[in-house]
Amino acid sequence: MTEPADADNDSTATSRRHFLRESGVLMGGAVLSGLAGNEAVAADIADNLPPNVPEWMKAPGDPMGSQLYGTPSPFEKGVVKNIPKDLPQYLSASGRTPLQDLDGIITPNGLFYERHHGGVPTIDPAQHRLMLHGLVDKPLIFTMDDIRRFPSQSRIYFLECSGNPIYKKPYGKTASDLVGLLSCAEWTGVSLKLVLQEAGLQPAAKWVVAEGADAAALTRSIPIEKCLDDAMLVYSQNGERLRPQQGYPLRLLLPGFEGNMSVKWLRRLRVAAEPTYSREETSKYTDLMPDGSAREFTFYMEAKSIITRPSGGQRLGAPGFHEISGIAWSGRGKISRVDVSVDDGKSWQQAELQEPVLTRALTRFRLPWRWDGKSAVIQSRAIDETGYVQPTLAELLAVRGDNYYYHNNAIWPWRIASDGEVTNANA
Amino acid sequence: MTEPADADNDSTATSRRHFLRESGVLMGGAVLSGLAGNEAVAADIADNLPPNVPEWMKAPGDPMGSQLYGTPSPFEKGVVKNIPKDLPQYLSASGRTPLQDLDGIITPNGLFYERHHGGVPTIDPAQHRLMLHGLVDKPLIFTMDDIRRFPSQSRIYFLECSGNPIYKKPYGKTASDLVGLLSCAEWTGVSLKLVLQEAGLQPAAKWVVAEGADAAALTRSIPIEKCLDDAMLVYSQNGERLRPQQGYPLRLLLPGFEGNMSVKWLRRLRVAAEPTYSREETSKYTDLMPDGSAREFTFYMEAKSIITRPSGGQRLGAPGFHEISGIAWSGRGKISRVDVSVDDGKSWQQAELQEPVLTRALTRFRLPWRWDGKSAVIQSRAIDETGYVQPTLAELLAVRGDNYYYHNNAIWPWRIASDGEVTNANA
Repeated sequence: MTEPADADNDSTATSRRHFLRESGVLMGGAVLSGLAGNEAVAADIADNLPPNVPEWMKAPGDPMGSQLYGTPSPFEKGVVKNIPKDLPQYLSASGRTPLQDLDGIITPNGLFYERHHGGVPTIDPAQHRLMLHGLVDKPLIFTMDDIRRFPSQSRIYFLECSGNPIYKKPYGKTASDLVGLLSCAEWTGVSLKLVLQEAGLQPAAKWVVAEGADAAALTRSIPIEKCLDDAMLVYSQNGERLRPQQGYPLRLLLPGFEGNMSVKWLRRLRVAAEPTYSREETSKYTDLMPDGSAREFTFYMEAKSIITRPSGGQRLGAPGFHEISGIAWSGRGKISRVDVSVDDGKSWQQAELQEPVLTRALTRFRLPWRWDGKSAVIQSRAIDETGYVQPTLAELLAVRGDNYYYHNNAIWPWRIASDGEVTNANA
Repeated sequence: MTEPADADNDSTATSRRHFLRESGVLMGGAVLSGLAGNEAVAADIADNLPPNVPEWMKAPGDPMGSQLYGTPSPFEKGVVKNIPKDLPQYLSASGRTPLQDLDGIITPNGLFYERHHGGVPTIDPAQHRLMLHGLVDKPLIFTMDDIRRFPSQSRIYFLECSGNPIYKKPYGKTASDLVGLLSCAEWTGVSLKLVLQEAGLQPAAKWVVAEGADAAALTRSIPIEKCLDDAMLVYSQNGERLRPQQGYPLRLLLPGFEGNMSVKWLRRLRVAAEPTYSREETSKYTDLMPDGSAREFTFYMEAKSIITRPSGGQRLGAPGFHEISGIAWSGRGKISRVDVSVDDGKSWQQAELQEPVLTRALTRFRLPWRWDGKSAVIQSRAIDETGYVQPTLAELLAVRGDNYYYHNNAIWPWRIASDGEVTNANA
């Protein structure tokens, strides 16, 4: 890995790096000094400080079986999905992943983003069916047991809503407000190609129209090329069965395509010669261009990245060493490079990418940084294996005009004030 | 990927493969026929069959925000940790991952196995401290904020209890009964080497004694070589902060070593010249050999595998195509090959390994299989990158004798009866 900058001159492998001591935050000093006005709490903490034995070692803890299905610590109760306070209604709505509180690339299932148009149906898998018909030799209806009988595959892929974020102010304050309609998981299911082959595609087959079993019957048309490439029918996510909010018991998964096309609660695949021009590919999920035409079937989520730590709503405690960490992703394939600027875009440094770098998955990047305690603007820029470079918001707006709504993959800068407060630099 | 055997002579890329149709289980027939004795339920299901619109599409589903932190479908309520019914007491106990119900390699945090010796402490991260002392230039005490200030890294590693399973009958019935003290996650934290360098190791430093902040004060001695290699202090698991059962807010992680050494609720690291010979490395986690000597400090979890589907407690529905799927792992590094036998060990076929194959992580393997409807014994055998081959139970017992308890990495065969029932072939 890239070694962080070292204030010591001694840079041998066994040198001591003193990331923290020079910042003066060790030996509990920072926490205790912050509690000067609350002596009872400070005394309580002092009782638990080494070499004292803390209270929680003096009595047995919770017994086995108190949680047959585990939940987070009560001290993490604030780490939940981020749901806008001003939702017009709660059936066509979204809940965002709290990206600024997460590490690595896997999103835990409890915090996976959700977006639905008619609420979340409760489906008995024993009653669920997938109907496959249209331009096929033999129409078929599958039970979930049938689907599970096919050869399986597992892949780590991101999913992202195409309205993540919108272009117009007011922009949000946190990484989750901005791009929290984004998550990543290990999916298991069956290749859609195999299932289509079971029914037999007719020569005129050019599209597959997928329909969900929710009250919105969400419907999208998928080009046959994608269906015969890496498209999957998935039933498991991070090991266990899909959550209801992610399409239990069965969803389509189209790696790298805008999230709404990965139809949840999948009940029907109709093979067709033409797309169906559903509500979700005409009234919604299209964009009005400056010349009055509409851009439709905007499948791919282009390369994008964001710094999650430090990010809006957080505060740097003291000058000194701070790691800059974030996530990058591209619907076109692998991330090949992420650049980070700590001087408002004047210069860029190449960040370290956490291995393994996987196609159409989140990629965690990191850059060591020594904050001098002055105000600064930090931002990241993703480059994918096609050579595509993540644009600035100004560049996007110049091309797309005022009516554009979806597919905002702009660079997003954070401003760090001299008191350490981090805010949205575009807001 | 390996293509499954094809009953059709036509084997071109566009051929139809008919995995399921020849088994006669499509078109909902299997489910409806299984409900012959319950006409009310059958009629209810028929109402929901295509082309009918199912009940759950006729009304809005659950609104946004009904679960700020998501949980599994109510139809998956049986997929929980597997806790032995006859636990002598619940403070020193274990809860197993339901491996036979999971896909892929990531274990969701709610189902990660747990093993503790004094219950699960509830620790306020603001009050938690890690003390680092002993043979160091400067003893240090870290807050969680301090730990989070270090450069971070993320790795996917398995964790396994060394008593997984024991050698003596009665053996369990399911994959979880046998090897459910095994899980795999993406961990994020800091290299232990960096933290030790912060304090400065003295030349006599050969061991690091780690102590947990639970009521058992679980204590293990770790060779300095491991501490300076891939050992980590971890605070996050699958993106979010550690669960209480996995050591919140901080645990040691020793990739490939027996699970109890990855000390949870980590409060103290004492650098020493000698191991401490704690209860957990003398009375427990050692093995009495046939010559009366004790084998101690048995760090590595050797190569191992198990078929999870089909596995004990499951039932094959009909002859025809069935995928054999399982997991393999090795504390020594990467899995290089998994062989599967479907004829009671007479012959072996090489299984497909799901990419990416990662060091000291679970590796998912799969083999297509056409079951002829006769009784069969199936089993898997892992080979790791060191060339080590997973042994049979008989081979292990011959070397280790009757008093051995830990580190049973034997091949585990499943018997499939002609009615499809799968049972433990060693029981």
